[in-house]
Amino acid sequence: MAREDDIRAEETLDPEDWESMRALGRRMLDDMLDYARTVRERPPWRHAPDEVEARFQAPLPLDPSPVEEVYEEFRAFVLPYPVGNIHPRFWGWVHGTGTVLGAFAEFLAASMNPNTGGRDFHSAIYVERQVIDWLKEIAGFPRSASGLLTTGCSAANLIGLAVARNAKADRDMRKEGLQACRRRMILYASEEIHSSVQKSAELLGLGSDALRLLPVGDDFRIDRGVLEDAIRRDRRDGHLPFCVVGAAGTTNTGAIDDLDALAEISRKEDLWFHVDGAFGMWAALDSDLKHLVRGIEKADSLAFDLHKWMYMPYDIGGVLVRDEEEHLRTFALRPPYLAHGEGGRGLAGGDLPWFTDYGFELSRSFRALKAWMSMKHHGVRKYARLVRQNVEQARYLAKLVEAAPELDLLAPVMLNVVCFRFAPPGAGEAARDLLNERIVVELQERGVAVPSGTRIRGRYAIRVANTNHRSRREDFDLLVRETIRIGEELAGE
Amino acid sequence: MAREDDIRAEETLDPEDWESMRALGRRMLDDMLDYARTVRERPPWRHAPDEVEARFQAPLPLDPSPVEEVYEEFRAFVLPYPVGNIHPRFWGWVHGTGTVLGAFAEFLAASMNPNTGGRDFHSAIYVERQVIDWLKEIAGFPRSASGLLTTGCSAANLIGLAVARNAKADRDMRKEGLQACRRRMILYASEEIHSSVQKSAELLGLGSDALRLLPVGDDFRIDRGVLEDAIRRDRRDGHLPFCVVGAAGTTNTGAIDDLDALAEISRKEDLWFHVDGAFGMWAALDSDLKHLVRGIEKADSLAFDLHKWMYMPYDIGGVLVRDEEEHLRTFALRPPYLAHGEGGRGLAGGDLPWFTDYGFELSRSFRALKAWMSMKHHGVRKYARLVRQNVEQARYLAKLVEAAPELDLLAPVMLNVVCFRFAPPGAGEAARDLLNERIVVELQERGVAVPSGTRIRGRYAIRVANTNHRSRREDFDLLVRETIRIGEELAGE
Repeated sequence: MAREDDIRAEETLDPEDWESMRALGRRMLDDMLDYARTVRERPPWRHAPDEVEARFQAPLPLDPSPVEEVYEEFRAFVLPYPVGNIHPRFWGWVHGTGTVLGAFAEFLAASMNPNTGGRDFHSAIYVERQVIDWLKEIAGFPRSASGLLTTGCSAANLIGLAVARNAKADRDMRKEGLQACRRRMILYASEEIHSSVQKSAELLGLGSDALRLLPVGDDFRIDRGVLEDAIRRDRRDGHLPFCVVGAAGTTNTGAIDDLDALAEISRKEDLWFHVDGAFGMWAALDSDLKHLVRGIEKADSLAFDLHKWMYMPYDIGGVLVRDEEEHLRTFALRPPYLAHGEGGRGLAGGDLPWFTDYGFELSRSFRALKAWMSMKHHGVRKYARLVRQNVEQARYLAKLVEAAPELDLLAPVMLNVVCFRFAPPGAGEAARDLLNERIVVELQERGVAVPSGTRIRGRYAIRVANTNHRSRREDFDLLVRETIRIGEELAGE
Repeated sequence: MAREDDIRAEETLDPEDWESMRALGRRMLDDMLDYARTVRERPPWRHAPDEVEARFQAPLPLDPSPVEEVYEEFRAFVLPYPVGNIHPRFWGWVHGTGTVLGAFAEFLAASMNPNTGGRDFHSAIYVERQVIDWLKEIAGFPRSASGLLTTGCSAANLIGLAVARNAKADRDMRKEGLQACRRRMILYASEEIHSSVQKSAELLGLGSDALRLLPVGDDFRIDRGVLEDAIRRDRRDGHLPFCVVGAAGTTNTGAIDDLDALAEISRKEDLWFHVDGAFGMWAALDSDLKHLVRGIEKADSLAFDLHKWMYMPYDIGGVLVRDEEEHLRTFALRPPYLAHGEGGRGLAGGDLPWFTDYGFELSRSFRALKAWMSMKHHGVRKYARLVRQNVEQARYLAKLVEAAPELDLLAPVMLNVVCFRFAPPGAGEAARDLLNERIVVELQERGVAVPSGTRIRGRYAIRVANTNHRSRREDFDLLVRETIRIGEELAGE
């Protein structure tokens, strides 16, 4: 019916010349492989000069540019100035390393470009279900549990805590909301819990006041008595305690709460037990470390990252929920345009639930593919060895710190995080804080290594969080040597 | 200090053989380019057979497998069974198409693997800031507005509505929560609004009861009088109306609320004005369509997708907030381990805010790169032409439907969504619903095309949402021809 003469030529975003696009792809492939292979030869981070930042203030590009030119701009102004976390001496915050295979998988996933929010009888759904099943197995969760891959542990904590809130409310939370609830809903975590738990409490409308941040002991873990007292006090005050959040690997020190004890208290008190296992969950992989997270398998919900200690490229995390019904009661919603058919035919005729029924996102990317390919290729035993290797490296670093008279270890090394400082004799606390803050900056600026900083009981600490599959012991030797050298240089000024 | 003899050999996830990894990468590149180039020769979707699903129930892979074998498994069991949205005749739900360059960019982004949650003096931050600036320009937002790229419009709606809730509450929402608020917080949208707005209201603790879904007129848009009455009634009942949500492109029919009128009412009534512009926002690109979204530039917050009508691979969407201070008041949080330094030196010494200060995620991927490269290469004028092309194709399809005595158009075509049905004379409504549901299934199962289904005023509709840069007019000819053919075949049974 379309008549040629009344039709404007139809355009597409497909390449005009597929062969030159292939040639460009090959250059990108070669460049990225070289970039990864030679990463050790470069500094972890180079401070991007002002001229680079200035380039990114160009006006809206109305007209096209050759794709090769755009790639050249990427090569000249984007690629040389990474944050640096693929480098063997990057241990700042908790950044993952990524892998070459993970990057390949992202290319494959974006080439297929499925929307994994739902539908059925397409492979991306099967891949994600499989990955979720594997994660349940690792965490010791039952097969009947539900799960979802997320952008990371922040979204996963949000989902787990939303299910907790809705499951334990004294009204129909989803319909009537928090303002209809009679008793003030309260949740508990240690003062060392990750800030995403507070952000979740705020976003969920509970307010940060509802989050009791319990003081920790010398081991940086929740004290059982402190928790039980807090619950008792809140009940006495007419509130509704509803959730305990355990940390498997705190950001500051890598401390792991006594998850077994928290599970027991939660059961006894009829509270939801959520675990933030961002990186610490992966201790479960190694037979010698597994005891540290004993009790994680008893959680009602468990949040974790795969882009940190499973070394996959950003972004990928996940959440498991023991009681699938509660999970669905919080999130499943089926407007007419997402109607589900019957009879096992057609894209909407297959199994429920869809992944949209487990979270707040309706469109979802195929992030499962990098997990599926990576876990199959490397094998989970290799991940276990690498987690163990990172812990041994952290212990090694702690020993170096303890052996150096110029350095103080500021917290016990429980997993893969080491907090220490340069402590010249005679200097006051304020001077030491300032000095160590400057040491961190210099280590970064001089391209030696990237630790980050934090405060441990008020003291500024140089902090190394090791989720890096490229680090070697010699990298920690260098860090200690340079920390002392720079510390003495700065102290002498 | 590390002694060779007491050290286990350190492992990494880097390739053992970089050259064979390069060879594999080349195969992937060739395969994916061929896959995209030949997509028209395949059916949009093939129902994955049971044997395929069964393969994805393998136990946790403990031991490694050669990477080439894993890729072969991908080629054999994942690649052939996509959901199909890269195909020229896929118009189900609102799925984006993706591009080859977008997939290349995902590979580059994952190879650099930055965490874009924050820090400074690294390029990924500059790229995202630039993309946000461009988006403000397209939307007509002031430079002073803040913005964040998200996984899509669901997360963007959630963020926009969270800021709205916190800005308008009668207590300190972030600290004290909804349970401390005096008046019941109420928001307004049309009954045609996307379900993610309801999901957001539920997640934010407002409850679905707090969302007034206003009945629409024949144009599927909010009626001004109906909205004003509802606000008046809620105030009279002692509630706190706080937000109006306008739709720029509803899922069902592509209807666009009168955003100018909603902005005016919101200002007058002191309500937050949020716009869900998932795909409809992009009408702003074309001079002939721009009037449809007049008023979008007056929104207090605006949510949208880039993986739908900007054709980028999943996932990418975004949110803009006019008042950056309100945005920060809702989300900025800086625990000691995310402390910001001073003096413009070191990774934490640069500009604030960080992107973490605008949302609930702490780790973030480099999804900005695909937007930056795509917008630069194609140029925004080309996106404008393609949006226009999709609208013209939708109008073309509507004409074909109107010209066919066997078909009924079920809603006016306002943008890029066409809802119609096969309507044999004499059949009752229930029979027609069932018949059209079966037609959708058959169109999918036979590999003809992928529309999805919805209900328009209770009637089952075949729904075509055209955000596809590969579609041509002839594809719509085929759809109409086959719908009638299959309809007659099924009606004759």
